[in-house]
Amino acid sequence: MPSVPGVPRVRCAVLLLSGGLDSYTAGAIERANGYDLFALTIRYGQTHDREVAAARDVARALGVVKHIELNVNLAAFGGSALVGDGEVPKDRPLDVSDGIPSTYVPARNTIFLSLALAWAEVVGAEAIVIGVNALDYSGYPDCRPEYLEAFERLARLATRAGVEGQSFAVLAPLLRMTKADIIRRGTALGLDYGLTHSCYDPDPNGRPCGRCDSCQLRARGFSDAGIVDPVAAAKAME
Amino acid sequence: MPSVPGVPRVRCAVLLLSGGLDSYTAGAIERANGYDLFALTIRYGQTHDREVAAARDVARALGVVKHIELNVNLAAFGGSALVGDGEVPKDRPLDVSDGIPSTYVPARNTIFLSLALAWAEVVGAEAIVIGVNALDYSGYPDCRPEYLEAFERLARLATRAGVEGQSFAVLAPLLRMTKADIIRRGTALGLDYGLTHSCYDPDPNGRPCGRCDSCQLRARGFSDAGIVDPVAAAKAME
Repeated sequence: MPSVPGVPRVRCAVLLLSGGLDSYTAGAIERANGYDLFALTIRYGQTHDREVAAARDVARALGVVKHIELNVNLAAFGGSALVGDGEVPKDRPLDVSDGIPSTYVPARNTIFLSLALAWAEVVGAEAIVIGVNALDYSGYPDCRPEYLEAFERLARLATRAGVEGQSFAVLAPLLRMTKADIIRRGTALGLDYGLTHSCYDPDPNGRPCGRCDSCQLRARGFSDAGIVDPVAAAKAME
Repeated sequence: MPSVPGVPRVRCAVLLLSGGLDSYTAGAIERANGYDLFALTIRYGQTHDREVAAARDVARALGVVKHIELNVNLAAFGGSALVGDGEVPKDRPLDVSDGIPSTYVPARNTIFLSLALAWAEVVGAEAIVIGVNALDYSGYPDCRPEYLEAFERLARLATRAGVEGQSFAVLAPLLRMTKADIIRRGTALGLDYGLTHSCYDPDPNGRPCGRCDSCQLRARGFSDAGIVDPVAAAKAME
């Protein structure tokens, strides 16, 4: 977008928003960096909806320009415990060298980034924000820096905007942070992590299982940060 | 997939199947090259359904292993005449140097290839077949060879299979063919183009308008090939 003299240039970014604490924090960091946010939540056939409800609360808390929820039924392809094929593993040691877990969803981030790219091009956003993390990333290939760089290259070639000289940055502000770093940073930004949901396999009332990879990573993160998880605290009060 | 001595190795590919003549021909060429096909049709909020009905007929004619239709409502983002934003242009001169037309759908092929990649990884397919064309391509950026190569590179980085050493080929057998070449090749392979639908803006009975870019390219292709278009012939008989 060309800038107008005397008018501060508005920079927009599409935020991939899951309802977990990572995408909330990533969005808050880039909002603090001056981006107006367009939040995109993709309902991809997860076996529970609790996460989507959390995404709505988080979008409101972030003050996004617009929030779109898009259905893409990845369960049609199968191949992941997260979309109904097999059990979500519980009580696994948190060790990335175990390889890629059964909660890996084939090509998920590529699909998510592609959809975000489409919206970014339509609204004139120059960036996509994604809350991926290369340290506590549970071994997913599509959370690695070289993957994100390859997507940026593709995005320039894929779009009309790219042909016209625009580039799309993939902003992954959490990429090299530990979960504890993320939680400390979000807490410093005043985020309410009580709005978020991280569990892969909540009970029928939407309460976290406390035993899947995601619950374990979250618990360790809050513990390492020396901060109380409001979700765990609420569960303990019941 | 490791090969077993004495057993012919089955090679699988996911075919992006639209119901038009290009994806039908591309699928038939790769089937003749020895691939078992998994057909993926994406309903992305086009303003008409005639094309999806054609995709079912074509999938049957190609003898695919499985056909999945997936809804992805790209109309939620707007930004294209193909998904309800603005009029489909009619009677435009067929001149690619006009730039990228309003029927361009932001990031469409990236979204389609990403979804095909997900299914390819699940079923163990080593290729994705897409009917794009760099000559008669109406000026879309995501039909260029450098774009397809960038996607192959991304696919290796994006997936568990890629991490484990597999690569995914993006097969675009029509890339350097004219529409007339495509029609001649498909006719030689015995394809029934009467099953296909190309029009961006059919009438309520599903009949082609004859005036959009896609209809014009199709008519010129059949004319240049010296072959009668069975769809146009049926329309003329009414």
